[in-house]
Amino acid sequence: MDRTELNAKLDRMFYPASVAVVGASDVPVKWGNLILTSILGWEYKGKVFPVNPKKDSILGLPCYPSITAIPEPVDLAVLVIPAPQVSGALRECAAKGIPAAVVISSGFREMGGEGARIEEEIVRIAQDGGIALMGPNTMGIASAHGRLEALPTPTGPTPGGLSVISQSGNLGLQVLKWIAHKGIGLAMYAGTGNEAVLHASDLLAYMGGRDEVKAVAMYMEGLADGRNFMDIAREVTARKPVIALKAGRSQAGSRAAQSHTGSLAGSFATYRAMFAQSGVIQVNTPTGLLNTSAALTLLPIPRGNRVGVMTMGGGWGIIAADECEDRGLVLPPLSGQTVTDLDERLPRYWNRGNPVDVVGEGDPELYLHVIETLARWDEVDAVIALGIVGRSRYVEDFIACQERFDGKLYSKELKLAVLKAQIQAEDRVMTGIGRIQQETGKPVLVVALTEEGLSVRRTSYSPVISLSTPEEAVDILAHMAFYGEYLAGRT
Amino acid sequence: MDRTELNAKLDRMFYPASVAVVGASDVPVKWGNLILTSILGWEYKGKVFPVNPKKDSILGLPCYPSITAIPEPVDLAVLVIPAPQVSGALRECAAKGIPAAVVISSGFREMGGEGARIEEEIVRIAQDGGIALMGPNTMGIASAHGRLEALPTPTGPTPGGLSVISQSGNLGLQVLKWIAHKGIGLAMYAGTGNEAVLHASDLLAYMGGRDEVKAVAMYMEGLADGRNFMDIAREVTARKPVIALKAGRSQAGSRAAQSHTGSLAGSFATYRAMFAQSGVIQVNTPTGLLNTSAALTLLPIPRGNRVGVMTMGGGWGIIAADECEDRGLVLPPLSGQTVTDLDERLPRYWNRGNPVDVVGEGDPELYLHVIETLARWDEVDAVIALGIVGRSRYVEDFIACQERFDGKLYSKELKLAVLKAQIQAEDRVMTGIGRIQQETGKPVLVVALTEEGLSVRRTSYSPVISLSTPEEAVDILAHMAFYGEYLAGRT
Repeated sequence: MDRTELNAKLDRMFYPASVAVVGASDVPVKWGNLILTSILGWEYKGKVFPVNPKKDSILGLPCYPSITAIPEPVDLAVLVIPAPQVSGALRECAAKGIPAAVVISSGFREMGGEGARIEEEIVRIAQDGGIALMGPNTMGIASAHGRLEALPTPTGPTPGGLSVISQSGNLGLQVLKWIAHKGIGLAMYAGTGNEAVLHASDLLAYMGGRDEVKAVAMYMEGLADGRNFMDIAREVTARKPVIALKAGRSQAGSRAAQSHTGSLAGSFATYRAMFAQSGVIQVNTPTGLLNTSAALTLLPIPRGNRVGVMTMGGGWGIIAADECEDRGLVLPPLSGQTVTDLDERLPRYWNRGNPVDVVGEGDPELYLHVIETLARWDEVDAVIALGIVGRSRYVEDFIACQERFDGKLYSKELKLAVLKAQIQAEDRVMTGIGRIQQETGKPVLVVALTEEGLSVRRTSYSPVISLSTPEEAVDILAHMAFYGEYLAGRT
Repeated sequence: MDRTELNAKLDRMFYPASVAVVGASDVPVKWGNLILTSILGWEYKGKVFPVNPKKDSILGLPCYPSITAIPEPVDLAVLVIPAPQVSGALRECAAKGIPAAVVISSGFREMGGEGARIEEEIVRIAQDGGIALMGPNTMGIASAHGRLEALPTPTGPTPGGLSVISQSGNLGLQVLKWIAHKGIGLAMYAGTGNEAVLHASDLLAYMGGRDEVKAVAMYMEGLADGRNFMDIAREVTARKPVIALKAGRSQAGSRAAQSHTGSLAGSFATYRAMFAQSGVIQVNTPTGLLNTSAALTLLPIPRGNRVGVMTMGGGWGIIAADECEDRGLVLPPLSGQTVTDLDERLPRYWNRGNPVDVVGEGDPELYLHVIETLARWDEVDAVIALGIVGRSRYVEDFIACQERFDGKLYSKELKLAVLKAQIQAEDRVMTGIGRIQQETGKPVLVVALTEEGLSVRRTSYSPVISLSTPEEAVDILAHMAFYGEYLAGRT
């Protein structure tokens, strides 16, 4: 199958007009029930055909004894049946001309022996039948714009720009949950399982070519064909960022990876070189994968590694400066013009350095003036704003305390007014940051006084990302700067 | 003042029978109002005397025109008045024999000129009057067992074992908020401000000697007397862990630190050597400070760096193994006896390696068997358990999805029963881990499928800490192992 034909079949997999769930079940908590429920429960608009020879109907839908018994065309078959039955079912898929299949079932190469033999057989059937086959031994796929979640547990993501390819089901599912709960916006998800037919690289090529995809995050344990991956990655990274977490970089991890998927993890140094040469952003942890991918999906890409920092209070700024230097980011000393611009609004005793300390000042317009001055200054590529947003949580604590006492001084109205003013001030700052990002084309990362890690705020301009700590913001910017510099260096 | 006398005065500061708030105000959002409200709002049991010559009463309390006008003894004076008035107020404190004062006001050495001169003056007054003086230019102190928060915003912590010393007000306050919101349990907090009289080292000596303190977390920008700190730290770390975040380790950070407090940050290498020699655990980020301090306050201390990992699914285990190796932790291969013990409960195809993959098994007793086998094995010092707890969130998502669909198959009763069973299973696991920790004296860190970062679960045995990601758990264990090995190496 050439790339064009394959991509057309993957369109049918991720944007199917109809789905057959082979091995659908009405027994709660069985996989054949979980997958069907996830598909039905999450606004999928196409037709769904349960297949199970022992049932007439499941979850209120007519049930078919076999795939070939389905009276209408089927774009995607999801197989949730025991491994020994998979070959037969796939032959039926081929007979019916179904272009795409996801084999959830396990019990193949990862088990060795008979399982490995069956896997070879299904590869032949898929190839002969022209079936784009995902898996086996995968937790499934998702397509947020296609409103399809063929997964054991639904995640209900907002449709958006981030695509995920994962060689681990558990880890992939967890990343999906994070994306959904944090509202980052998902395009597609592919759990590639044993990669008997479709490989992570095929999915990268496919997702890289789709307009709705703004960035691709990959969790990988091992690649069958590094050269092929590099060729595809180089092509994709010219247009959109690819972020990869390669697991098994240690001896213990590499041993565990081999026993997990049976794939050879390969030398980590080789992967690192491959990533660097093809502009793939390498992260080392799941949080790094999520945070960096979210930022690259939603924010402008910095052109280099120079950062302007605004801080409320010294401590946070110092920590941010330390982390920047550790991660290869540079804090240029303020230019004379920048100092003059900042003098306009800051109290006369301000520190005149980068980080800019706004000390105790409480005016959102002042913050925005500082952020905008830094963002418009041509010697910085990105801005970090520390300790401004999230004070409404402090006000809430204060109100709770005041009410525990007696509330005599602060009336209910006054308390609500103070809280409302704080929330509005923070909204003004966040919207202003959205505007500044949009106008300057430079990312502004907010570090908020909250505990929730990454959070996304949609504004009337570009979305704004906040983190809980300076180290998270710096980690993201370091990865973004790598990509910005890679793009700048390409001819 | 010798150490015994000083500590007696610090007892009066942190466990005062009465507090005067000098500069108390009834104008909302003024500092003199915020501090008074925080003290009154948070169950402080002693007497509170507002001092303000312009008022007869504030927040329903009689108000005094001066400190000397207060008709009863005062243990602690909190000063929230303009810098030029502080000398006079302190002289009154001395005249009245008040043993302890916290000077919140700013406008001293950090402003230079006249401010620096006043600071010299208040040092003399405090020394002559025998006043233990915190600050100036501090956001205040807190004492959770003493039910006192002399802070601009209350945090309402659970009384517990962690003490915090901070040379930054904003950062210290944020750490306090985290401690309160996450229920870690606080003993005391000291924001040391300009350290005109009391230094961070004095507080370390004091807190190190109090039984209710289980661990001390320090944020520092610069020390006036490194030798003195080392002597004190060596003494304290023999009995309890001290965790330090030294900011200003980069050039940019060090410049910012100097402009922030005026203290010389000093070479980071010197600090690193100092910490290593005195058994102080060095962390680089606020999250590292919080997470490591929480674990060392609540969990047993490992004797070394050997880790047993249990994982649900391969991916998480590989990441954990990679992170362990990066951070100097060792995953010993399973011994023959351990394999035999695990064979008892695990399915026959289990991976027989460390990490132990429990694959798709869903039985809490099996998880506990694996965790207990690892914890009791004499070749590991600590255990990480990945991907078990937090699945109730998955079940909640599943139920929401099923209800969006039609709820036909799963009755309300069945759904609630499934959720309840999951929550009970997780409770069983967490309680079992508490027991295993207590019986084996080894920490077991849980990585849960949630987004909230560190969270503390109180069980009927020892408390259990869970994190969101393997990298957080490994970071904590690496720091704990450093301390365990330091203790083992002391004569």
